[in-house]
Amino acid sequence: MNPYVVAVCGGYHCSDETIAMAEEVGRRIAEAGALLICGGLAGVMEAACRGAAQAGGTTIGILPGTSRREANPWVSIPIATAMNDGRNPIIIRSADAVIAIDGEFGTLSEIAYAAKMRKPIIGLGTWEVSHPEGIPDPVIRAATAAEAVEHALALAAESRSSALGGG
Amino acid sequence: MNPYVVAVCGGYHCSDETIAMAEEVGRRIAEAGALLICGGLAGVMEAACRGAAQAGGTTIGILPGTSRREANPWVSIPIATAMNDGRNPIIIRSADAVIAIDGEFGTLSEIAYAAKMRKPIIGLGTWEVSHPEGIPDPVIRAATAAEAVEHALALAAESRSSALGGG
Amino acid sequence: MNPYVVAVCGGYHCSDETIAMAEEVGRRIAEAGALLICGGLAGVMEAACRGAAQAGGTTIGILPGTSRREANPWVSIPIATAMNDGRNPIIIRSADAVIAIDGEFGTLSEIAYAAKMRKPIIGLGTWEVSHPEGIPDPVIRAATAAEAVEHALALAAESRSSALGGG
Amino acid sequence: MNPYVVAVCGGYHCSDETIAMAEEVGRRIAEAGALLICGGLAGVMEAACRGAAQAGGTTIGILPGTSRREANPWVSIPIATAMNDGRNPIIIRSADAVIAIDGEFGTLSEIAYAAKMRKPIIGLGTWEVSHPEGIPDPVIRAATAAEAVEHALALAAESRSSALGGG
Repeated sequence: MNPYVVAVCGGYHCSDETIAMAEEVGRRIAEAGALLICGGLAGVMEAACRGAAQAGGTTIGILPGTSRREANPWVSIPIATAMNDGRNPIIIRSADAVIAIDGEFGTLSEIAYAAKMRKPIIGLGTWEVSHPEGIPDPVIRAATAAEAVEHALALAAESRSSALGGG
Repeated sequence: MNPYVVAVCGGYHCSDETIAMAEEVGRRIAEAGALLICGGLAGVMEAACRGAAQAGGTTIGILPGTSRREANPWVSIPIATAMNDGRNPIIIRSADAVIAIDGEFGTLSEIAYAAKMRKPIIGLGTWEVSHPEGIPDPVIRAATAAEAVEHALALAAESRSSALGGG
Repeated sequence: MNPYVVAVCGGYHCSDETIAMAEEVGRRIAEAGALLICGGLAGVMEAACRGAAQAGGTTIGILPGTSRREANPWVSIPIATAMNDGRNPIIIRSADAVIAIDGEFGTLSEIAYAAKMRKPIIGLGTWEVSHPEGIPDPVIRAATAAEAVEHALALAAESRSSALGGG
Repeated sequence: MNPYVVAVCGGYHCSDETIAMAEEVGRRIAEAGALLICGGLAGVMEAACRGAAQAGGTTIGILPGTSRREANPWVSIPIATAMNDGRNPIIIRSADAVIAIDGEFGTLSEIAYAAKMRKPIIGLGTWEVSHPEGIPDPVIRAATAAEAVEHALALAAESRSSALGGG
């Protein structure tokens, strides 16, 4: 069976604490034998890739630009889409679960796509959303990197074992 | 000079009130001489297109599927992307301003993209978002269809007259 | 019933003769009441749009970049995909028939997509292709702009009236 | 330094000989330590992935549909684009060199994109193209799987060492 794939989403500009958390998320994904997928650039994406790569993991970067050379140095599988932010849904669709860490509007688009595609979303210090007609916020909040990765993998496993899982 | 283009975003399933509001939004966009762009399907999209088309306007439908035949009957310019929800950023990028009406997670992704692309976003009964680090909710709330279209066109004009406008 | 949509494909760099031919193709598409769709940039695309616009037609430009401002001045409906050459299949999929004029490798990709999507393709001084196992060249050759547009519209009509038409 | 990435393009329906050749191409790519990227489906794609996977290689499948489950069983990194044939340029852009084996119009689109992006293209029993103004056919013909992979890797190395390489 194929390993689980966990998407890590987050912004370019973030605090040292957020970077440390992203790196730990990446390391724990790799230690669990899962693949990490992300947008392949700097900030949260780079920190998560570094954590995963240093733990021997595989990191997939779905890049916005025309060249694989824009990938951060810890991406092992760079994919150049040349689609700008249009690549965001590809990241989400290729994952079993999503961890959103802090992040700006790109991350919000990824949360929205994950909810639309019924992928589990774990949040660490990220967006909260509310709808006047009561559609629930799709993000499951975690307090630590360890908790986020644990939830993500448990929900990925649940999703794969359900009828529609593994999509 | 090219006419303004206003994106109308919203979901498939919505109340009769929402449908009436979307139709009025479409009509007012057309009456102002602006073009309407949307996802081209049913619900809010169809109501807005009907309102615009019945007022003599042009309606552009950026469709998710492989065939132009999935467009609602009020789309005058159907574009078949075959990209599923990956077509959402194309709708936003081709607009001067965005009006979000109710809507589910697809609409949330469009709000996120509009914010990322620095397009004005007017909301009618739609998502509210908040970020732990205080990034402001990008949606300007309106109470009526008339107010939403008025705001959208005023902000579109401002954006075009600024250095980066019209993008 | 919606008007026919004819895609015009061709390169940036071309002779004065090719430009004149593209302009006539555009004019004839508009005179027939059909819409013109193309990549929205310079060269053959601009000449075809100019011909159509000057005859009162509607011209749709499916742009590769992030801004509608890169459209040539004769595009009436600019769509900004931000997908680079990834926008080529959208042009073809949104058309009833394709006219390829001269052109380089971008045009060759559009011929390939048109053949894959079973859209009629008329060629004016463009690529010829051959396959070792005898797959036929999908391009119907025309000698003049008038002939190309006539063929394109006749085949568009045939395609729409068939079971799979209008896709 | 990142390993080379070789794209293998070809059709669904092909002879046993073509399948055997694709499998050998895949095996030789893996034996050389390069990654294989392809469209992830059946036919030439599956045979190449099987050859690579059985030799211990990594295989990336850039899938057209909405689910990773459509990947052939030998794809180790499935990416679900939900873009239909619009995913073809992503395959090419993410590769250092392209090997086209037999193939139909999808493969022709990939040859065209590879030429446009100035990626080396090696052909095994595939399309030939000619242009009235003498643009050269971009495909370098090989007679055997061994020769194709040797050429692809040599040209990938050349391309990476040049100023614009590795893009």
